[in-house]
Amino acid sequence: MYYIGIDLGGTNIAAGIVDEKGKILLKKSVPTCAEKGGEYIVKAMSELVMDLIKTFEISFDDVKSIGIGSPGTIDKKNGKVLYANNIDFNDMPVRAKMIEYFGREIDIYIDNDANCAAWAEFVAGAAKGVQDAIMITLGTGVGGGIIVNGKLYSGFNYCGGELGHVVIEKNGVPCNCGRVGCWESYSSATALIRMTREKAEENKDSLMWEYYNEKGAWSGRTAFLAADKGDKAAKEVVDTYIDYLACGIVNMINIFQPEIFVIGGGVANEGENLFAPLREKAKSQVYGGNSGVAHTKIVGAETGNDAGIIGAALLDE
Amino acid sequence: MYYIGIDLGGTNIAAGIVDEKGKILLKKSVPTCAEKGGEYIVKAMSELVMDLIKTFEISFDDVKSIGIGSPGTIDKKNGKVLYANNIDFNDMPVRAKMIEYFGREIDIYIDNDANCAAWAEFVAGAAKGVQDAIMITLGTGVGGGIIVNGKLYSGFNYCGGELGHVVIEKNGVPCNCGRVGCWESYSSATALIRMTREKAEENKDSLMWEYYNEKGAWSGRTAFLAADKGDKAAKEVVDTYIDYLACGIVNMINIFQPEIFVIGGGVANEGENLFAPLREKAKSQVYGGNSGVAHTKIVGAETGNDAGIIGAALLDE
Repeated sequence: MYYIGIDLGGTNIAAGIVDEKGKILLKKSVPTCAEKGGEYIVKAMSELVMDLIKTFEISFDDVKSIGIGSPGTIDKKNGKVLYANNIDFNDMPVRAKMIEYFGREIDIYIDNDANCAAWAEFVAGAAKGVQDAIMITLGTGVGGGIIVNGKLYSGFNYCGGELGHVVIEKNGVPCNCGRVGCWESYSSATALIRMTREKAEENKDSLMWEYYNEKGAWSGRTAFLAADKGDKAAKEVVDTYIDYLACGIVNMINIFQPEIFVIGGGVANEGENLFAPLREKAKSQVYGGNSGVAHTKIVGAETGNDAGIIGAALLDE
Repeated sequence: MYYIGIDLGGTNIAAGIVDEKGKILLKKSVPTCAEKGGEYIVKAMSELVMDLIKTFEISFDDVKSIGIGSPGTIDKKNGKVLYANNIDFNDMPVRAKMIEYFGREIDIYIDNDANCAAWAEFVAGAAKGVQDAIMITLGTGVGGGIIVNGKLYSGFNYCGGELGHVVIEKNGVPCNCGRVGCWESYSSATALIRMTREKAEENKDSLMWEYYNEKGAWSGRTAFLAADKGDKAAKEVVDTYIDYLACGIVNMINIFQPEIFVIGGGVANEGENLFAPLREKAKSQVYGGNSGVAHTKIVGAETGNDAGIIGAALLDE
């Protein structure tokens, strides 16, 4: 039997056929086209499933279940997205609409995208074998996933784990969610790009402009690349970014003291340029940091860009 | 059989003889005298236990267990306080020292004071029958207790639940823990008193001075009392205080989505003057607040000042 996992992002919909161990056997993606609205997105996801089944030359009967990782707050029980920030999913009955599209019954699971990414790390990645773990995903936003006693935790109404929507700078940068100063507004890739652009505009001689001109756009890599070459303004961006990231991570460690804190998403690909200073900053701030207890390990995600697909696919476990 | 619970605070040590339902049968307290050091505190707690047993006219054999709620991070397994902010308990083997003092074996449990308060609400108070709950205690600091799936959660190293040490205003007010801008620095009774004093000093005609002169000191009640009489400066203090409190509570709701959020500690005694505007502010900020899901109830603690004693006494459950 095969599993299909769908990772619904603000920019792309990625989906894959996955085996029971979390190995991806075939992967495809299409643009989300969020501006076309929620109905379009559900149709695009359904078509992508059909496309995978056709390309992999299996039948619908070979698929044990379909799992979807979606942004927003999810009513897992009823297979609905209740509310999302970046896509037009408000009270959207995704499961029912997909079953209608397929014209047949099939088990469809849906959970928050960050929960799916955390679940992938737990079943097949960096947090395998650990009972208490936190995962964040640094992408368009800051997604969070909580694993307590070996299970995904999402609160009594399935809406918990919105770790990115924790205010770390009251009266700071406005967030899409309506609050002001959310961690997401400082630690998402989107925020890193904002900080990069702002700093570059203040420093017209910064190396960051070279990378900008090369790519024709600011990216989450621009400041890291320029900082690596010794550019002072870029180093300031990276330092500020890591400072906020550490602040939010220490917040979570002081709350959860997880055995493993996993970081995924594009920015995590910066590797030790990100992790070495991050661990240093976090260590100095954790509550009771000098006492003799074991400390949370801060590590990169192992399932990488595939986390969303793998975690969604194995949601039925 | 009887249980003895000890609530070790920065100012007083309160202890009580408790029955199996969480009812306090006898209660006594002594000053903590934190400045005399950790050894003195352990001796004072032991003497208080002996005093309770003697006054209640029972013997040591009638006591099933002793529980201690202490500030700081606790090694529950080994009965030690590893680290505390406000009292001199660093790597202090409380259980062993008390057994030495008593000169006999007895079951002694120890946990974080805020965990004990949360546990009291779960076994005998506002969160009875609920599976997921958060409790905070607004006192010298902001203590936190997390109940997930009907159990106290404190992370893989027993140091979790430090909800007060979550930064909500980066580069804000310095905290005793070494970080800057912790929730505790804005929402503890200590912080409320600081805000009250500062605002009163800017407003020499404020009613707050009358209450100050009456009591000879600033208290957590000063601003609430004056605000209730219509004093403008006092209203600003109360509004700011509740604003920060709501910010931190919404942070926790976005993370945990608990069924019940319980608030204890002296400030919670302000009742609806605190809770009505607090619920209003929180409601407008919770992630996905307008979606159709059930919302966290924000309520006052029911076990009141006795929470620490009751929760500590019943830690063995």
